Amino acid sequence: MLKRLGAEFVGTFWLVLGGCGSAVLAAKFGGDGNPLGIGLLGVSLAFGLTVLTGVYALGHISGGHFNPAVSLGLWAGARFPARELLPYILAQLAGAIVAGFILMQIASGGGTFAIDPNAAGVFASNGYGAMSPGGYSVAAAFLCEVVMTTMFLVVILGATSARAPAGFAPIAIGLALTLIHLISIPVTNTSVNPARSTGVALFAGPVALSQLWLFWLAPILGGLMGGYLHRMLERD
Amino acid sequence: MLKRLGAEFVGTFWLVLGGCGSAVLAAKFGGDGNPLGIGLLGVSLAFGLTVLTGVYALGHISGGHFNPAVSLGLWAGARFPARELLPYILAQLAGAIVAGFILMQIASGGGTFAIDPNAAGVFASNGYGAMSPGGYSVAAAFLCEVVMTTMFLVVILGATSARAPAGFAPIAIGLALTLIHLISIPVTNTSVNPARSTGVALFAGPVALSQLWLFWLAPILGGLMGGYLHRMLERD
Amino acid sequence: MLKRLGAEFVGTFWLVLGGCGSAVLAAKFGGDGNPLGIGLLGVSLAFGLTVLTGVYALGHISGGHFNPAVSLGLWAGARFPARELLPYILAQLAGAIVAGFILMQIASGGGTFAIDPNAAGVFASNGYGAMSPGGYSVAAAFLCEVVMTTMFLVVILGATSARAPAGFAPIAIGLALTLIHLISIPVTNTSVNPARSTGVALFAGPVALSQLWLFWLAPILGGLMGGYLHRMLERD
Amino acid sequence: MLKRLGAEFVGTFWLVLGGCGSAVLAAKFGGDGNPLGIGLLGVSLAFGLTVLTGVYALGHISGGHFNPAVSLGLWAGARFPARELLPYILAQLAGAIVAGFILMQIASGGGTFAIDPNAAGVFASNGYGAMSPGGYSVAAAFLCEVVMTTMFLVVILGATSARAPAGFAPIAIGLALTLIHLISIPVTNTSVNPARSTGVALFAGPVALSQLWLFWLAPILGGLMGGYLHRMLERD
Repeated sequence: MLKRLGAEFVGTFWLVLGGCGSAVLAAKFGGDGNPLGIGLLGVSLAFGLTVLTGVYALGHISGGHFNPAVSLGLWAGARFPARELLPYILAQLAGAIVAGFILMQIASGGGTFAIDPNAAGVFASNGYGAMSPGGYSVAAAFLCEVVMTTMFLVVILGATSARAPAGFAPIAIGLALTLIHLISIPVTNTSVNPARSTGVALFAGPVALSQLWLFWLAPILGGLMGGYLHRMLERD
Repeated sequence: MLKRLGAEFVGTFWLVLGGCGSAVLAAKFGGDGNPLGIGLLGVSLAFGLTVLTGVYALGHISGGHFNPAVSLGLWAGARFPARELLPYILAQLAGAIVAGFILMQIASGGGTFAIDPNAAGVFASNGYGAMSPGGYSVAAAFLCEVVMTTMFLVVILGATSARAPAGFAPIAIGLALTLIHLISIPVTNTSVNPARSTGVALFAGPVALSQLWLFWLAPILGGLMGGYLHRMLERD
Repeated sequence: MLKRLGAEFVGTFWLVLGGCGSAVLAAKFGGDGNPLGIGLLGVSLAFGLTVLTGVYALGHISGGHFNPAVSLGLWAGARFPARELLPYILAQLAGAIVAGFILMQIASGGGTFAIDPNAAGVFASNGYGAMSPGGYSVAAAFLCEVVMTTMFLVVILGATSARAPAGFAPIAIGLALTLIHLISIPVTNTSVNPARSTGVALFAGPVALSQLWLFWLAPILGGLMGGYLHRMLERD
Repeated sequence: MLKRLGAEFVGTFWLVLGGCGSAVLAAKFGGDGNPLGIGLLGVSLAFGLTVLTGVYALGHISGGHFNPAVSLGLWAGARFPARELLPYILAQLAGAIVAGFILMQIASGGGTFAIDPNAAGVFASNGYGAMSPGGYSVAAAFLCEVVMTTMFLVVILGATSARAPAGFAPIAIGLALTLIHLISIPVTNTSVNPARSTGVALFAGPVALSQLWLFWLAPILGGLMGGYLHRMLERD
């Protein structure tokens, strides 16, 4: 069990360091309007590749959840035992928070780094209303996170089904996370993962923290819905 | 059968929500000329990834068509029975329309969202002439959609052939759709899929609706041609 | 044999229509400096995806060369019989030229399309000196095309070796072509494929045509070198 | 043994020519601020694809390290014998330096090419402080290179584990290198590979050379840490 929790810790660390790290360090490289930066497309790719690489590296140890909404969705899909939910989620949270801390150490070594707690998406945090990158309402943010997490779980459960081709699931799952970011960064800066949201919100100031509830509630709701939807589609 | 139609509904929902969603929400993020937005490259990637992830997740249930032109092309390629064409196409249409509706709910939660029914590509709709993103004529648009759908079916039928390596087809098919968008978004905003065109045209105003005929006729013609071309190339 | 030549025709058609099509139609979409266009990155991806999708779709029929330098390199690597070289190369040329013709029909349906025979990279043509996108000398262009084609064949022959994992070769080969474009579009607009160069040069005006010799000579030299290099590396 | 060293030479040559070549030739194509250039995202993709394609082509010959930190990390992970470390590292260095030389020949054939030894990232060199693309401190640079190489080895060792799905490791490893570049180009121009750093530093002037120590020390430290971390996670 310890090794499995270690793998969840390392995988979630990698997800937050890589995904949020690309956003903080490289998205706007060279300044606003400079096309050298990787932009939303690069950040979307980075998030997906953390999961693709993490699941190939660690999936055979822990299953490669790296996300409380995924663990809960797998439980709803009858693929994960309830008694392991809490330790998994705590390991994921710990990995995410350590990643946020390390990212802060690296980022603050750059000349121009600063935390503006009122800026949308500060330190790669998730948000709605004034903290949404595109100024989306709390209702739109909630709907978007629920639907995206639902579909994320449909892909995860379907691609790891015994009837799907073996070995390809990490590609499908990682690129599903890329796709979700390609759609929804403007709406909420994209969470679909309460651990990822928490790992950076702790360093992003009080406004981001005050909105963290939505990025636990909506992804978990979506994860559960995705688990049940998968069971309806696959039931024999 | 119901589960198969459910899978086609969910997969086409994902295709339209993800592909058109990325176009509506993220393509021009930050305003015209801002390189943070995902641009045509990001939208192309998003469309392809909806299919790549959808086929890995749902292909073992329904075959993963998500597109009336694909269902008809598979029938022309002797891979799909005629009696299932109508229910499949209806499920695809339903999924596409629900996706258009949900996307409208999310998009309208952003501060600056508006529908201009005379703008090319409004709400990710397909078009020609004044409604073509690059102002392409109806003849160029028709030719382009026919050729692209023909080649899409050649890839789909070839990559799922019993002689092709097993398990890789969703990668080839999804990335073929990415490629098709990389080429042809400027011409028609890229359809090759009547359900995708219908799902957003219903919300994009009367001009887009009045051009919808081309995005049924040309993809279906191309789909049938691709099916026959594949049979010529593979015939023993 | 006819089906194999048909597959080479269709695959090379797809390579030129998709790769050059993305360059002509979408690279600079919205005008110079507009980040909506897919740029060199999108064109690089498109070229690679034509091969990735084409080899998954047609590789089991013809081997999926789509390129005279590849056919010659496979012959140098003792994987392809000399007597089939000429028909394969003719089928590839025919597919490339038909693609150039179809692309011209689509492109000329856009309002602002024009052929300036003195512009570097006109109609996605390859060139050196004043016709090189970055103004590279004929010596740099020749060296670059030779080295890139050599390494392309090393990847093709290595990834299709009996000792490499089965089924993955189209991914490695397609993405190798993407990589080659990411490096060398500024130098020569990237050929590594005499058929691709010919298919558009015929429509790009006299200057591009007068430079076509280099894009036969250098890729073929590189292809042969790659074939021999592979044999040295794999020899038991 | 000679063929294995030849494969390491060729693979590292490809890594440096392709990764650094894309940075030198194509990243800023068209001038500062021109979105046609491939930017940091394109360079990140190029580095990853050199490894993805190189490992599919050559991995069955030499294992496909192409990087002294990887060879040392594999040794730390009990996957590579100590007595082969020195010849492997020498072959990698030779390949990297020849790639730097060839790249210089191609690049200097372009009209506007120049080496400014005081510019951050000159000739794709790695650096910290004034030589860091984003002006990051030596401490941030060191931390970043250590953490990135640690995680690179965790992915390499995990994805090639006997319990991971066979055949997919080159995808996971190559895209892990892409991901690492998406995060850390602004910090150090991304090394995680002492051979890559050396291959271009020799041509980049005295300042880059004087900082080369960090790009041996930090990646090797990270490689060893990754090897030990993997053993802790996989230990039975």
